[in-house]
Amino acid sequence: MVDKTKSLTVPALMVEGADQCADLFYGSGFMPVDPVVFLDAGQHRTLVVPMLEFGRAREEAKGVEVVLPDDIKIPKKRGRSISHWALALLRREGIRRVRVGSFFPAGVMKVLERNGVKVVVEKGSLYPGRAVKHADEVEKISDSQRAAVSAMRRARVILAEAVAGADGRLRWQGSVLDSERLRTEIDIELLRKGCHARDTIVAGGAQAADPHERGHGPLRAGESIVIDIFPRHKRSGYWGDITRTFCKGKPLPALARMYKAVLEAQQLALDMIKPGMRADKVHQAVCDYFDERGYETTVKDGVVRGFFHGTGHGVGLDIHEAPSISRIEHVFRAGEVVTVEPGLYDPDIGGVRIEDTVVVEKSGARILSAFPKKFGIG
Amino acid sequence: MVDKTKSLTVPALMVEGADQCADLFYGSGFMPVDPVVFLDAGQHRTLVVPMLEFGRAREEAKGVEVVLPDDIKIPKKRGRSISHWALALLRREGIRRVRVGSFFPAGVMKVLERNGVKVVVEKGSLYPGRAVKHADEVEKISDSQRAAVSAMRRARVILAEAVAGADGRLRWQGSVLDSERLRTEIDIELLRKGCHARDTIVAGGAQAADPHERGHGPLRAGESIVIDIFPRHKRSGYWGDITRTFCKGKPLPALARMYKAVLEAQQLALDMIKPGMRADKVHQAVCDYFDERGYETTVKDGVVRGFFHGTGHGVGLDIHEAPSISRIEHVFRAGEVVTVEPGLYDPDIGGVRIEDTVVVEKSGARILSAFPKKFGIG
Repeated sequence: MVDKTKSLTVPALMVEGADQCADLFYGSGFMPVDPVVFLDAGQHRTLVVPMLEFGRAREEAKGVEVVLPDDIKIPKKRGRSISHWALALLRREGIRRVRVGSFFPAGVMKVLERNGVKVVVEKGSLYPGRAVKHADEVEKISDSQRAAVSAMRRARVILAEAVAGADGRLRWQGSVLDSERLRTEIDIELLRKGCHARDTIVAGGAQAADPHERGHGPLRAGESIVIDIFPRHKRSGYWGDITRTFCKGKPLPALARMYKAVLEAQQLALDMIKPGMRADKVHQAVCDYFDERGYETTVKDGVVRGFFHGTGHGVGLDIHEAPSISRIEHVFRAGEVVTVEPGLYDPDIGGVRIEDTVVVEKSGARILSAFPKKFGIG
Repeated sequence: MVDKTKSLTVPALMVEGADQCADLFYGSGFMPVDPVVFLDAGQHRTLVVPMLEFGRAREEAKGVEVVLPDDIKIPKKRGRSISHWALALLRREGIRRVRVGSFFPAGVMKVLERNGVKVVVEKGSLYPGRAVKHADEVEKISDSQRAAVSAMRRARVILAEAVAGADGRLRWQGSVLDSERLRTEIDIELLRKGCHARDTIVAGGAQAADPHERGHGPLRAGESIVIDIFPRHKRSGYWGDITRTFCKGKPLPALARMYKAVLEAQQLALDMIKPGMRADKVHQAVCDYFDERGYETTVKDGVVRGFFHGTGHGVGLDIHEAPSISRIEHVFRAGEVVTVEPGLYDPDIGGVRIEDTVVVEKSGARILSAFPKKFGIG
């Protein structure tokens, strides 16, 4: 699972905790709670962990030497600082030059540099091989995607059961159905499938026109409701990602047209993706398609309309990872897992985004766990 | 809410995303999704956010200038890199020296230094004033703590309803009650209270003797079951933290003795805490108490027994923040919010940890949202 191409030249150093540990987990098999130090010198890989993590690290990090700070002779008064764990480890291994990720902690880098270690900051992952998934990784992403689909199904059932009051507000099981309540039901379904989600989006009406708005307050009939579910599997650490847009009752013509344009743009992108195809050309095709349909992207008085995010991003141990389907040049390779998620946004009409997660295969993009793309809910 | 003492001298620079944004949120009132740049120059505070975050940032960041990368004249080809957002902002403001946190991204620091900016890495928070909570912050932590208590109550009800089979394994509502299932029920209750939790611990038997083990597999009667619940409120961003240890049925005498020692040690610590008291002396008192009761801390063949973590840590926008109740010297101040969580661990007996979150007040430690500390569950 470990990409050796680069690690044979300059050793890779990671200082990562629970919040951000995709590279460390990929390289070591260990998912830390508090920050730990991991050195990948190709043949020899070493983890420095606090006493509290020692037992679990030895069990989970296969083929990795696991040591305690005391084992690598850190001066007692410095033993509390993770910078000095890293420095002592490099000294023991006789390493004076390391590669680190762009989110490597500045505090640790300062200590290393002050002590003569040359630190090279990489732009992307320390394991560029992470972009191309092995079969077992695709299976793990599929697991998370199945959980996401299950939660999306639950959301659609709730919207189907909901009824609109005279004021258009939806009610479900006797009380108002707001974004918060629907999100809770979605997140509960994810928990039951072994996943957790932090930022599930349930955004209706004008909120749906802001792609980063999580959504709050009552949901209404006739408006677009964007539901974006991206769970992480608790056991595997891999993410899934799916978005659907629904409308309870009949959408206004402008909104229905917007939905049709996004649906067609997504299909266009899905049809283009295959090994050897340029990702940036897929993105450009989506942009062009929207432009041709009259959905130019504009900024006026601080309000953005149109399509103003990437067409997709890689999914794996990070929810956003390489490759992206955007203006950045990239040639698709078999085994890459990406989202395909064009969207259109206009505060006066609403927002529509349709997203699937696909694996790039010889024959094209294969959707991981399909779910219908029907806009209206009766 | 913003601590001005230091920011008036050297401006503080933050590049933070959703995973780690306590300082940025504290200083700006804005909780980002993707990484953004925040500069706190005392009188003048500025956020640089991507187009996607613009609307929300302007709404949430009160008294802060919110700009897009385009607004600060970043060369087009560099506009995609957040390092150049930070650099362009510093140039516009004429700032050549900044303070950053120890987890500031190394990649951004390299670009700043290469362009003549002097970067000072701070050890703790850029807002040391975060340690002393305002009344509204105590209220927000209390909200999260109430959710945690509600989830703990739910866990105790489930353990009370559970029955032990002939093999000692617990069953509930017709099937095996394992750590995973009980954790899911706890996390669902937290969701219903507006919180999310990523790493709820439900660890029984020998697993309970490893304080970082999340717990897996069947729970059994007669064993200690450590339940550590630390939710974050979705809206406020503040954490809560509580731990209880239960035993379904009658514990063996060695385990019952261990529970009594931890309960007494926690009370000892709670009784000592008040403004002016040294936190490290509270920790030492807990260590001494355990030693006197015959619970020395030992390491043998890689197995650790006794008490080998801090007595407590600050709680706020981070789950672990200043001050800590450990060997580190600190004098308590009124308004600090800390956990008090001594524990004893022995793989041959089990593990016991009892934790409350308290606010330091003139009259002593006030527990935020109390919950009984009864070990046995009939």
